[in-house]
Amino acid sequence: MKRILLINGPNLNLLGNREEEIYGTVSFDEILLNLKDTAARSGNEIDYSQSNHEGEIIDKMHEAIGNIDYIIFNPGALTHYSYSLHDAIKAIKIPTIEVHISNIYGRDKWRSKSVISPAAAGTISGFGIRGYVMALDFILKQK
Amino acid sequence: MKRILLINGPNLNLLGNREEEIYGTVSFDEILLNLKDTAARSGNEIDYSQSNHEGEIIDKMHEAIGNIDYIIFNPGALTHYSYSLHDAIKAIKIPTIEVHISNIYGRDKWRSKSVISPAAAGTISGFGIRGYVMALDFILKQK
Amino acid sequence: MKRILLINGPNLNLLGNREEEIYGTVSFDEILLNLKDTAARSGNEIDYSQSNHEGEIIDKMHEAIGNIDYIIFNPGALTHYSYSLHDAIKAIKIPTIEVHISNIYGRDKWRSKSVISPAAAGTISGFGIRGYVMALDFILKQK
Amino acid sequence: MKRILLINGPNLNLLGNREEEIYGTVSFDEILLNLKDTAARSGNEIDYSQSNHEGEIIDKMHEAIGNIDYIIFNPGALTHYSYSLHDAIKAIKIPTIEVHISNIYGRDKWRSKSVISPAAAGTISGFGIRGYVMALDFILKQK
Amino acid sequence: MKRILLINGPNLNLLGNREEEIYGTVSFDEILLNLKDTAARSGNEIDYSQSNHEGEIIDKMHEAIGNIDYIIFNPGALTHYSYSLHDAIKAIKIPTIEVHISNIYGRDKWRSKSVISPAAAGTISGFGIRGYVMALDFILKQK
Amino acid sequence: MKRILLINGPNLNLLGNREEEIYGTVSFDEILLNLKDTAARSGNEIDYSQSNHEGEIIDKMHEAIGNIDYIIFNPGALTHYSYSLHDAIKAIKIPTIEVHISNIYGRDKWRSKSVISPAAAGTISGFGIRGYVMALDFILKQK
Amino acid sequence: MKRILLINGPNLNLLGNREEEIYGTVSFDEILLNLKDTAARSGNEIDYSQSNHEGEIIDKMHEAIGNIDYIIFNPGALTHYSYSLHDAIKAIKIPTIEVHISNIYGRDKWRSKSVISPAAAGTISGFGIRGYVMALDFILKQK
Amino acid sequence: MKRILLINGPNLNLLGNREEEIYGTVSFDEILLNLKDTAARSGNEIDYSQSNHEGEIIDKMHEAIGNIDYIIFNPGALTHYSYSLHDAIKAIKIPTIEVHISNIYGRDKWRSKSVISPAAAGTISGFGIRGYVMALDFILKQK
Amino acid sequence: MKRILLINGPNLNLLGNREEEIYGTVSFDEILLNLKDTAARSGNEIDYSQSNHEGEIIDKMHEAIGNIDYIIFNPGALTHYSYSLHDAIKAIKIPTIEVHISNIYGRDKWRSKSVISPAAAGTISGFGIRGYVMALDFILKQK
Amino acid sequence: MKRILLINGPNLNLLGNREEEIYGTVSFDEILLNLKDTAARSGNEIDYSQSNHEGEIIDKMHEAIGNIDYIIFNPGALTHYSYSLHDAIKAIKIPTIEVHISNIYGRDKWRSKSVISPAAAGTISGFGIRGYVMALDFILKQK
Amino acid sequence: MKRILLINGPNLNLLGNREEEIYGTVSFDEILLNLKDTAARSGNEIDYSQSNHEGEIIDKMHEAIGNIDYIIFNPGALTHYSYSLHDAIKAIKIPTIEVHISNIYGRDKWRSKSVISPAAAGTISGFGIRGYVMALDFILKQK
Amino acid sequence: MKRILLINGPNLNLLGNREEEIYGTVSFDEILLNLKDTAARSGNEIDYSQSNHEGEIIDKMHEAIGNIDYIIFNPGALTHYSYSLHDAIKAIKIPTIEVHISNIYGRDKWRSKSVISPAAAGTISGFGIRGYVMALDFILKQK
Repeated sequence: MKRILLINGPNLNLLGNREEEIYGTVSFDEILLNLKDTAARSGNEIDYSQSNHEGEIIDKMHEAIGNIDYIIFNPGALTHYSYSLHDAIKAIKIPTIEVHISNIYGRDKWRSKSVISPAAAGTISGFGIRGYVMALDFILKQK
Repeated sequence: MKRILLINGPNLNLLGNREEEIYGTVSFDEILLNLKDTAARSGNEIDYSQSNHEGEIIDKMHEAIGNIDYIIFNPGALTHYSYSLHDAIKAIKIPTIEVHISNIYGRDKWRSKSVISPAAAGTISGFGIRGYVMALDFILKQK
Repeated sequence: MKRILLINGPNLNLLGNREEEIYGTVSFDEILLNLKDTAARSGNEIDYSQSNHEGEIIDKMHEAIGNIDYIIFNPGALTHYSYSLHDAIKAIKIPTIEVHISNIYGRDKWRSKSVISPAAAGTISGFGIRGYVMALDFILKQK
Repeated sequence: MKRILLINGPNLNLLGNREEEIYGTVSFDEILLNLKDTAARSGNEIDYSQSNHEGEIIDKMHEAIGNIDYIIFNPGALTHYSYSLHDAIKAIKIPTIEVHISNIYGRDKWRSKSVISPAAAGTISGFGIRGYVMALDFILKQK
Repeated sequence: MKRILLINGPNLNLLGNREEEIYGTVSFDEILLNLKDTAARSGNEIDYSQSNHEGEIIDKMHEAIGNIDYIIFNPGALTHYSYSLHDAIKAIKIPTIEVHISNIYGRDKWRSKSVISPAAAGTISGFGIRGYVMALDFILKQK
Repeated sequence: MKRILLINGPNLNLLGNREEEIYGTVSFDEILLNLKDTAARSGNEIDYSQSNHEGEIIDKMHEAIGNIDYIIFNPGALTHYSYSLHDAIKAIKIPTIEVHISNIYGRDKWRSKSVISPAAAGTISGFGIRGYVMALDFILKQK
Repeated sequence: MKRILLINGPNLNLLGNREEEIYGTVSFDEILLNLKDTAARSGNEIDYSQSNHEGEIIDKMHEAIGNIDYIIFNPGALTHYSYSLHDAIKAIKIPTIEVHISNIYGRDKWRSKSVISPAAAGTISGFGIRGYVMALDFILKQK
Repeated sequence: MKRILLINGPNLNLLGNREEEIYGTVSFDEILLNLKDTAARSGNEIDYSQSNHEGEIIDKMHEAIGNIDYIIFNPGALTHYSYSLHDAIKAIKIPTIEVHISNIYGRDKWRSKSVISPAAAGTISGFGIRGYVMALDFILKQK
Repeated sequence: MKRILLINGPNLNLLGNREEEIYGTVSFDEILLNLKDTAARSGNEIDYSQSNHEGEIIDKMHEAIGNIDYIIFNPGALTHYSYSLHDAIKAIKIPTIEVHISNIYGRDKWRSKSVISPAAAGTISGFGIRGYVMALDFILKQK
Repeated sequence: MKRILLINGPNLNLLGNREEEIYGTVSFDEILLNLKDTAARSGNEIDYSQSNHEGEIIDKMHEAIGNIDYIIFNPGALTHYSYSLHDAIKAIKIPTIEVHISNIYGRDKWRSKSVISPAAAGTISGFGIRGYVMALDFILKQK
Repeated sequence: MKRILLINGPNLNLLGNREEEIYGTVSFDEILLNLKDTAARSGNEIDYSQSNHEGEIIDKMHEAIGNIDYIIFNPGALTHYSYSLHDAIKAIKIPTIEVHISNIYGRDKWRSKSVISPAAAGTISGFGIRGYVMALDFILKQK
Repeated sequence: MKRILLINGPNLNLLGNREEEIYGTVSFDEILLNLKDTAARSGNEIDYSQSNHEGEIIDKMHEAIGNIDYIIFNPGALTHYSYSLHDAIKAIKIPTIEVHISNIYGRDKWRSKSVISPAAAGTISGFGIRGYVMALDFILKQK
């Protein structure tokens, strides 16, 4: 059984009614149900956590040590400056997949730089909410 | 009736006894009373919130959806790096006025860049605590 | 009695029929009447000057020495390179409020840098033509 | 039926015996068989093309107009300077998924910038050869 | 009938006896006669203006509103810093062709950047005084 | 008789059905017929070549030595990085006119820099397909 | 008696089992006991606080006003972007010693810049956990 | 006989009552009398001109052709951006000595760059109003 | 026996009649004969290849795997942007000596950066065509 | 017994009468006596050397090989450019502690970069002359 | 009596036979005689020192404390990197005039930056060997 | 007979026992014997000099005027900042070959820039101690 932690960073709780032309209109709750279902079908388990607080996300990551096998992480705008999250990912040594809903390379210039990527196992960007599914699929197919 | 949320960021609770030559000696409590009074006289209402936590400010902004018409926001030093607050302002779609007590363009170089400004409805900088009054006046005169 | 000089820099004479989506459709003449009125009601006085010539604006500022108590200044695009205006403001020692109609931090990158701001008493940016009113209000309320 | 074109850029023909610690030891032939199989099972079709010539890749992309529904594209080191490929992707208007085997954000500094990403539909980076599978999966699940 | 305004910026009145190896030895008067002739032959009209004053050029451009159909503009060294001229061109909405006698991209580094180009309809650079003829030809052939 | 070589770089074969809002809807074939006609009428000759391969363009330029008097060159996106084309133009010593259909200075930032310009005899940018005609006119009028 | 506050920033709670080759294998608890002992022997007192939340650290610093004489502060990765902590140190006016376990100047480039240092009384970097002892010694020897 | 033109740029008319700690308290009139005297004693002649208009200074320089042998030039803040003045000095071919009252290298960062220096015969900076005397002395001693 | 591949990049086929003041007047054919002779005398062998196509050079390098012991490589202007060649050299694991005829560090600024050097075994620059001989000598003396 | 070499770089011989507000008024002789005493009390030994010559410092470091166990090094302004000292420290392999009297991060911008730090065992900055004592203490407590 | 120290930095001993087109053909010995003469005539005294060693120049400056009233200093290429000389000038508190024979702002880019200027009393650049005379004149006329 | 001066800069006296993985284990004495031998066999002569003092190297270079025909120069870390050595090479007009043992382009970023190269006749980098032999061979084969 794989224990997976899905973490959404700041403002991602507004998904579905935030800048719809960029982030779409589906709320994250619906997506989450789907993801949990998919995981459950193969006997795996998804924990979900959203926070607008960098500190809470770091706490959550620390608690994951020994309890979680993979992290799927959309850091929101913390992507661009939270070196503390970079260090947290390195410190906990749990493979962490970075997901961005929009194509962060094709918007404001400051969005094209991620300080998280160098610590992440891999990055998925620009596929909309499908990015979460792709991350999950990748994890489920790992041996 | 206009519902206005006034948010002060990190260290602004120390107003009145912090680097007096830059920020003056009046405590924010006195200013706030004045602002509330002014608002009340025209049948409007000011909610106040100060936090040293970026996450709490984002939470506060989210709660404002549907309850607040305008935000007056002094982000303190978060001005210079909190892209999460930039995104929050864009996500909640409530017109937000950025206020800086000191002239941020005439001090250390890093203070001259605001990552909040591109998301703000307007910016008022360098008028001391009078900046809050100016922001309030602007709002009260909006139709 | 406060003597106030309002200076508009290059291209601001076209206000009302220049890039309407950014600068609005009200001509500056109408705004000016309003401002003069407001000032007059409290026994104060506004002098107005628009010029497309950096040199004329500097001359005007020099003439203000001894005759003017406050300057409201929208430098237009001179904002971004006229160090001579920066020096003029410093040399005349008259408190000068910088006003920008549009949010200069949210457009072309070169517009986000003002060489005037470090010399200005304060900066108001992004409130449309209301910015002039805010500057006037601030001055009228000074003791 | 979806017609998919998979393009590998310069040096990716050496996959399997090139800097094994970064790119792994599986040859691309084996991967390709798998991908074609997966596609075929759901009645879809993969065309494959590898070239060390920027010009050939552009030609290939042009030929894809009208014949191909999706492109999976690993530009190799052209990622970092081929604005011509950026333009080609935009010109042909076929959704193109950018895949990188290694985490391009965690190696030499110049590798962290992709001139392709702003034109791509989405980017997958750092998942090893599994990245191709993820891209294919994404496409197969599109309606 | 097309009404065309030809504006030459600072130092271009010295054409013919200024750094001959770069700008040639023909005086602008001779060129102008030719240009006027060409225009007249097809029933069109050229107005000429040279100024070393940024402000005068802006004034001239403003006066052109409603009276002029096209502007041919060599901004001289104002090319490299006059954002006020950039704004003037945008404000008057008259198609403006930027002409440079020398190849500005092949000299001092600071000459290779034009702040005028993004506002211009098109740019002609490096063809010597023939650049003016090319601009005129373009205009005369417009419908 | 003048022998003229017209070279179009990458993606310009798609002219007429590529990002129409930027490049227009006329195909290059129609333009070419016109240009050839114009040249022929004064007893001159145009050779045409389009390639998506930097190398082929360099080869073509080398072959031009001794056979061609002028080159009209639209380098497409190679404009922004092909120092090899810069060197080729310098090596063959045939006057080469750089043409860009769109105004390269008013789009993405990376498009505003041409590594070709310092080697070109002159640059024409932003006049649409009319830029080719202007280049030809210039050449035909040379003695 | 000197009252000393020791603050550890994000991820430093993992000391002892985080990237051992960089941070060593001793847990911070053991170190703390030692430090408290040393302080106690000379009749002084150490308060300890660790947090992954920037906001909590600022709160803690504010509470220190009037209660604490010296701060020993390892900001973790907040070192590199938390201008709010910079401002907090300046606002509370308590001498604060910045400590880094590893040599921050000899690792990733972004680690070599501290936004805390300009506000700190002094910086100790690269001496491993001994850095805390050095900071304490310095304080104990102050008159 | 040497004919010398002394030009002062923007704000230098305020010399004597502008930021006294930087520019001193002597008015320029007194200095000028002295300079004229010194020149006259050796049968030479000084023309003086001050302007806040870049354009007027350029005009003045053009008029100097054939009438003036040397120029002493303090460009004020135009020092830092007026490429038009750079070009004017090059175009008129009259040796021009750049004088700055204060040490421009030891103040704001933007003051340390002169776009005039590369065109000037020499630069004198930081000697207060004595700089003008030094420039004059240099000229008088030229053969 | 050592098998050596000598590769010349874009425009180097014009050696002998290209910018003679920089590259000299000897054609490469003569040099090649000499080099082959020198190699043959000690029982070694030189293969020669020139191409203006980045892709062909990469192909050639791939073919060298298993057949070639050393590469002497003058990348021409590809030196400055071809990360694909950088990767090719790393991928084939054949020691490659970078040769530049002119001193690339003493010409245009962009020529002073080589993206090839970090992958090369060594670099020889500025010795004219003698650089090839030096590279060959180095190889022949290797054990 | 530990043999310690204390090296002071350029201008540090003037300690005690050089910019007293930054460096204090105690002469280094007094400090040195104290340091030697402290070392002697635990049977250790300090050698002292001051030089204004980069070369002499390098020589001194080389002589230290085999004779010295630790170096305490205040490089003075060589801190900011002497890569030769960086290399010397790396070459001699003797643990070297970098000491700065003032807080180099809180003064001129160029002072905030040390080219020595990446080679140093650790850095102590901003504690005044107490920094030397801290370095010595650290060394004496090493096993 | 004024005691003046004239210091020439690296390579200035070659004056008269070093890059004559830039530095002229007069040897420094002849200039020095003249300067000493001029000083002697008004009862003053010049000490001369040339060194290619940064350290020796610093030593010389230190010895000047109490013995020298003014320094005339041409730092040669040390101008561009010797922060130690910057510090020495500040430490000795003797007014120091920086002299450059050539116009350092009009040559290689790196020559346009002086790290000495911010510490110098004033800078004279581009007047050839006459610069020394100008510096001396300035000093002799000081009261 | 050719008189050759071989100069080694700072820390190169430690060759053979300094960072062996980069610089190898052969001492420079052995290499020197070989080089002298090779030179002697063809009736030429090598002078050797190593110094850790920039000033001494400049002195040595000056003495070489008239006595030396070629210089082989490894500047050590002075490579990266000694503009004085750059000037010395230009001043003495003796062809100087720059040699680096390691590949300076493939290590720390600051090592990839040589301020010596633009003044050198040619540069050899990355061939280990063989670089000296290559430089000597080049010289011996010159006519």
